[in-house]
Amino acid sequence: MAEEKLPRVVVVGGGFGGLEAAKKLACENVHLTVIDRTNYHLFQPLLYQVATAALSPADIAAPIRAILHKCKNVEVILAEVQSVDVNTRLVHAGDLDVQYDYLILATGARHSYFGHPEWERLAPGLKSLEDAVEIRRRILMAFEYAEKISDPAARAAAMTFVIIGAGPTGVEMAGAIAEIARHTLARDFRHIDPSSARVVLIEGEPQVLAAFPEDLRTSAMKQLQDLGVEIRTGVHATDLTEAGLRVGDEFIPCRVKIWAAGNNASFVGKSLGVPVDRVGRVLVQDDLTIPGHPEVQVIGDLANLTGKDGKPLPGVSPVAMQQGRHAARNILNMIEGRKPQRFWYFDKGSMATIGRNKAVADLHMLHLSGLPAWVAWLFVHILFLVGFRNRVVVLFQWAWAYFTFNKGARLITRNFQAETRPPA
Amino acid sequence: MAEEKLPRVVVVGGGFGGLEAAKKLACENVHLTVIDRTNYHLFQPLLYQVATAALSPADIAAPIRAILHKCKNVEVILAEVQSVDVNTRLVHAGDLDVQYDYLILATGARHSYFGHPEWERLAPGLKSLEDAVEIRRRILMAFEYAEKISDPAARAAAMTFVIIGAGPTGVEMAGAIAEIARHTLARDFRHIDPSSARVVLIEGEPQVLAAFPEDLRTSAMKQLQDLGVEIRTGVHATDLTEAGLRVGDEFIPCRVKIWAAGNNASFVGKSLGVPVDRVGRVLVQDDLTIPGHPEVQVIGDLANLTGKDGKPLPGVSPVAMQQGRHAARNILNMIEGRKPQRFWYFDKGSMATIGRNKAVADLHMLHLSGLPAWVAWLFVHILFLVGFRNRVVVLFQWAWAYFTFNKGARLITRNFQAETRPPA
Repeated sequence: MAEEKLPRVVVVGGGFGGLEAAKKLACENVHLTVIDRTNYHLFQPLLYQVATAALSPADIAAPIRAILHKCKNVEVILAEVQSVDVNTRLVHAGDLDVQYDYLILATGARHSYFGHPEWERLAPGLKSLEDAVEIRRRILMAFEYAEKISDPAARAAAMTFVIIGAGPTGVEMAGAIAEIARHTLARDFRHIDPSSARVVLIEGEPQVLAAFPEDLRTSAMKQLQDLGVEIRTGVHATDLTEAGLRVGDEFIPCRVKIWAAGNNASFVGKSLGVPVDRVGRVLVQDDLTIPGHPEVQVIGDLANLTGKDGKPLPGVSPVAMQQGRHAARNILNMIEGRKPQRFWYFDKGSMATIGRNKAVADLHMLHLSGLPAWVAWLFVHILFLVGFRNRVVVLFQWAWAYFTFNKGARLITRNFQAETRPPA
Repeated sequence: MAEEKLPRVVVVGGGFGGLEAAKKLACENVHLTVIDRTNYHLFQPLLYQVATAALSPADIAAPIRAILHKCKNVEVILAEVQSVDVNTRLVHAGDLDVQYDYLILATGARHSYFGHPEWERLAPGLKSLEDAVEIRRRILMAFEYAEKISDPAARAAAMTFVIIGAGPTGVEMAGAIAEIARHTLARDFRHIDPSSARVVLIEGEPQVLAAFPEDLRTSAMKQLQDLGVEIRTGVHATDLTEAGLRVGDEFIPCRVKIWAAGNNASFVGKSLGVPVDRVGRVLVQDDLTIPGHPEVQVIGDLANLTGKDGKPLPGVSPVAMQQGRHAARNILNMIEGRKPQRFWYFDKGSMATIGRNKAVADLHMLHLSGLPAWVAWLFVHILFLVGFRNRVVVLFQWAWAYFTFNKGARLITRNFQAETRPPA
């Protein structure tokens, strides 16, 4: 095919960074290959709403093929990349080898359990749709279990929810679980009072949302407390077991634990053979390329690039999206014989939602709390949600939930064929 | 509690029959306990749309607690019932024993593989949300796999979909898969042409939709053929393997097989100690009670009651819903010292949808085909869908899919933590 003569650009990862790069390159004069281990782009900022039964998985996911199918020189491959050989310019994905002239690596990050991988089963994190559906199942099952049993201690443990880590995800989970208990499930049970459920948020830093300015951190704490969330700051979780976990010198009996603490960069970065930081992020040059290989760029959560404040740029979607677009521009420049350009992050600010009418928004000049921050959060997230269809469905579900206090996706689903059979 | 003095009514099963009975009894002077092994009522007639990526699981499921929470004397228990002891009037569900004065047993049916349980893994049926999501995964994965490989034979097998059984579910699945291939996925791939996918529908009877009148059976065949579905009637599937299956004396290589052939009644029926039929349905008396135990009624797919035509009433939702309401009335009668009444099924007719603008509807006096039947089908199903929220979401998704030929829920999701790890 004529395509074969075009420069081969490979984008690994269909998250915010990879998708932006792909969209920018899709209809250019390149042969573009996008590789992801799922068939959809996931709108991660709303993943906590799937985990808390407000939205369905399909509401926040869009098939990568469908997003890119208009441009004929784009190929999408569903495969998990294990490594990259920068010398032979090959991407290895199982038994599949993909040749590239230019590579954008955007495989992101997964949870890190600080050397306790066995904790993942006990306290799942929130990165994938599978994680979210499993967390939803655990939260809803805890109430079902508490309703069935009579032992007060076991019942109390079942109705105690501990979230480890008070970054945006931890704060959003804590707020959403508190709201389910206080509102959504309030009238559904006969032997328990869901609104008496304990939601405990644990943070090693002195305050929640460490990345936010002082006044908003304080406001977020206050708004969480209004929802009845217990906040323990300056302490770390230890001794995770089925029965509970230790926080400082107190053991909290609890059935459901959710991990929102740490991230490790994807293992693919290490295969590049260039320096990585403590959490495995590739130390990229200021133009997003790696030393000695201008044809390889690393972006998003997988990249460590120092920002104006001397700290690495945060692992948030705006950084990834801007880097994705920049990396695409760099490739188009290089194809035309120009040099890759330096990347500058334009920080528009950040937001975290806490619950109904509750949020914080740091727009630099302007700090918002409560209703105005929450409304701003709604608009931004609807705006950035991929696909008209998803926007309408999510908007409707939110309106419905807002006026009825009801959550639409309260399903406890199990794995295929996990159903019990007749007693043998 | 005062409740304790009320007659204890237990409904086992939150399907169409059980839920109708529960809704009728919920606010009466009884202590009602509803037991189901899921926390939601599933709108089964639309399950095939989850399996074919048109709808999300939550769109066709409503939490049983939420449906019944208005009435204070209703208790909902999430548990799987193993057996009933009609002498001690106890329902056994795991380590839970529930006492009843009146029982409505509505545990439904599951697939039957005609003595080949090993086929379930190879050709899942469509009864639960877990089944539907797994079938969706297999259908979408087949195209992804075909896109990646080059061996023509393996590719052809991956793009061949065989549905075993041409009742309403089989017909709906065949039509929906054909439409995904011809329309939804048409532009998404580069190395395969999804519209060349083969969809084969196998039926042991001489025609599809055996329960429908002659003219509609013929029309359904015609409409399926218009969608490119290959129909093999009067033959049975044998020798199911990963590689394919035998139909008559031909072996069809195919990756995805879907079972829509036979049902067996739930095993709970056998524990009643009264006669059951060949497929395990309880032979109930004409008032839905079982011999010698007027306090026990069996309804829906678990019951075998002979209709006016001398054949057992079909396992469809209208029968279950009418029986549910009748069983509830019988209990209220018995509580007031009156006898349970004879049940008569009022058959309003039946419908099956085949695809966009394609369906058949048997309204007795009136036989509809194509667009009019399809429109009638839409209205009836939206009308009966539980919950205003679900209705609006489903209506919107359908409108969206109709005008864009797009399906909203094209997700390939795996089991929790099934993701591959870095090569050790």
